[in-house]
Amino acid sequence: MLHALFDLGPSSRQELARHTGLSQATVTTLVGEFLAEGVLHIAAMERNAVGRPYERLTINADRGRVVGVDVAETYVDATVYDLALGVLGRHEAALDEHQHDQAYVIDGIVGAIEAALDADGTDRDRIVGVGVSMPGHVQHDAGVSVFAPNWNWHDVHIEELLAERLRLPVYVDNPLKAAILSEMWFGVGRVVDSMAVVNIGTGVGAGIAIEGTLVRGSTNNAGEWGHTLLMLDGRPCRCGRHGCVEAYVGAPGLEATLAEIDPSHPALGRPGQRDFVESVAGGLAAGDPVLRELVRRTGRCLAAALGDLVNLLNVPKVTLTGWLPEALAPWLVPAVRDELPRHVLPGSLPGLTVELSEVPGNAVGLGMAAFTLEQFLARLGLVSPARTRPQPGAQTAQPIG
Amino acid sequence: MLHALFDLGPSSRQELARHTGLSQATVTTLVGEFLAEGVLHIAAMERNAVGRPYERLTINADRGRVVGVDVAETYVDATVYDLALGVLGRHEAALDEHQHDQAYVIDGIVGAIEAALDADGTDRDRIVGVGVSMPGHVQHDAGVSVFAPNWNWHDVHIEELLAERLRLPVYVDNPLKAAILSEMWFGVGRVVDSMAVVNIGTGVGAGIAIEGTLVRGSTNNAGEWGHTLLMLDGRPCRCGRHGCVEAYVGAPGLEATLAEIDPSHPALGRPGQRDFVESVAGGLAAGDPVLRELVRRTGRCLAAALGDLVNLLNVPKVTLTGWLPEALAPWLVPAVRDELPRHVLPGSLPGLTVELSEVPGNAVGLGMAAFTLEQFLARLGLVSPARTRPQPGAQTAQPIG
Repeated sequence: MLHALFDLGPSSRQELARHTGLSQATVTTLVGEFLAEGVLHIAAMERNAVGRPYERLTINADRGRVVGVDVAETYVDATVYDLALGVLGRHEAALDEHQHDQAYVIDGIVGAIEAALDADGTDRDRIVGVGVSMPGHVQHDAGVSVFAPNWNWHDVHIEELLAERLRLPVYVDNPLKAAILSEMWFGVGRVVDSMAVVNIGTGVGAGIAIEGTLVRGSTNNAGEWGHTLLMLDGRPCRCGRHGCVEAYVGAPGLEATLAEIDPSHPALGRPGQRDFVESVAGGLAAGDPVLRELVRRTGRCLAAALGDLVNLLNVPKVTLTGWLPEALAPWLVPAVRDELPRHVLPGSLPGLTVELSEVPGNAVGLGMAAFTLEQFLARLGLVSPARTRPQPGAQTAQPIG
Repeated sequence: MLHALFDLGPSSRQELARHTGLSQATVTTLVGEFLAEGVLHIAAMERNAVGRPYERLTINADRGRVVGVDVAETYVDATVYDLALGVLGRHEAALDEHQHDQAYVIDGIVGAIEAALDADGTDRDRIVGVGVSMPGHVQHDAGVSVFAPNWNWHDVHIEELLAERLRLPVYVDNPLKAAILSEMWFGVGRVVDSMAVVNIGTGVGAGIAIEGTLVRGSTNNAGEWGHTLLMLDGRPCRCGRHGCVEAYVGAPGLEATLAEIDPSHPALGRPGQRDFVESVAGGLAAGDPVLRELVRRTGRCLAAALGDLVNLLNVPKVTLTGWLPEALAPWLVPAVRDELPRHVLPGSLPGLTVELSEVPGNAVGLGMAAFTLEQFLARLGLVSPARTRPQPGAQTAQPIG
């Protein structure tokens, strides 16, 4: 119902019933509970054709505040939202991608959150929860960062550590799950119920929704499209395998490709990945032919890897999100579109679209805020956020792992 | 409920309600309708602890007959089932993989079905439907073979053509959809609700289920894992692309690999793909070291490609089906299991199993029979087989295709 309210804006009980497929009676009960907790309020009174008055309901934005945090290898981006997920304040802090120390990363996360709260002047008492996306393998139900390859973290109880520091309810998840939730609620999910959102930065992955189900996988590790093969025995990848998609289309992959084309190119001398990509964007705007070749090769690899995703899942829409496509979209998106028909089976091509995500702001932060809102409503007893049941442990064969 | 009856065997109304999550009242109504149509019957009367008698219900196997047909490039395999999907008769006819003529293929299909019916002595009046799996891109809702690459068929109205010849209700679909339905009902789907079944023969593909949803994709073209990349710019593939999984692990891929190892190997002289694979199996049983190297290389490619599938979807179980893995399982399955941990992310490895499918008989034929049974019940007004809604046609961006 929450999703329906975001989709529809101020809505009557009847519209909510129609949109959700729930019965009028159920919607009336739910709305009563939401109103009692102050999560919904009455936006307007209207009259229908026969003059009967009815209420238009909307999320009570001022009922509380939610913080959504995107933690990546090179930055922490914290956004403060009202309960209707409108942006109130935002702060981005750089992380040194070469510092792997736990205390350094946690200080960086806490610092960015506090700066975002200060920017908005938000009273801490009003915050109903903080959602933090962590790179790598995250067990969202246990609040554990199981493995973060860039920092070589194993089994860090990050939810507990952050909750202690912040003295606020914390929910952790993986950026791919956050990105697809925001795409489902605020992006192409408004018109289709199956889609993939491809997130590209240092790391690369895809959030996937199939017929309205957010695909988590049996250990919340689904979406690792960055670690599917483009080239068996190709470039070494961070994950230890060779030839993964990430090694070609992640930021370090672009550095490697540029070094193959022109090892002395000035963009390669920049200290960090984000500086490198900004410098590439600047050079492309100025018409640098070497960087155009970089975009051509990267676009081809990206189109091939997107073709694999579409051939496997036959999703009608793919969106791109993350700081790398945001910086390079004017050059990269046309290069991908040109190349894509050579990699998608004819039967999966009709109606297929690939575009930069239209989700506003930081899609990962917004998705984390939406998860956190669901958690808050669950604590109030209003919804059960049981989108993914864990797989039963029964074994019929010897496990590989 | 049908699925629950297959899962549970003879069941009380109470057990059916518990297993399906439906209310007792709904189950009682449904059971009444199924009994009235003769689709269920009472298998036994029992008494519970307080001595109240209750009925155990089961599918009325003799209510009718269903035919499930697997049409591939090299054969037609037709099986006659009773309504409980028990096998009554089967006939396999060879198709010449070099004959692409429509009349030739349709005669082959009809001939195999008639031979299977004759083998069992089934009266045609008792057949409630014929389910036919066609290779390539099939629009199941329109009954059209949109594209069959091996025969270069485009938009063949195969359902209509076969229904006219057979004078029976016909349902067509794609083998990947049939294989995953039978895996969901009769294979690892009895213990997990997300899984992939990999079908290998001339063509290669995967049937996918995510949390109990059969993944069809927006044009019923999902599962084309055989046309995801193993090697950008690698071997030419039937689909026109280079380096697809199918070009390495399909039967012609094995021929190409063997030709790379030893172009004069006697197995290469065989007239058809199935002869070739039988000859490989024979040579492996006799300890041929060249064929062991073929299995090692093929197992590595297959493990890499399965690793991609698992990394993307984090399914806990993958099964193998089709005539190629059935023939080579004793050598190929261990080779894949050895290699797989090098291709799966550590977070997706715990509990993962890869095994030969335990679905009995021809998994594609059985899945087609199950689809056809659903269609029959829908015609009786008993179920709506609406597993996949079509995607809405709304466009937010310029389509690629």
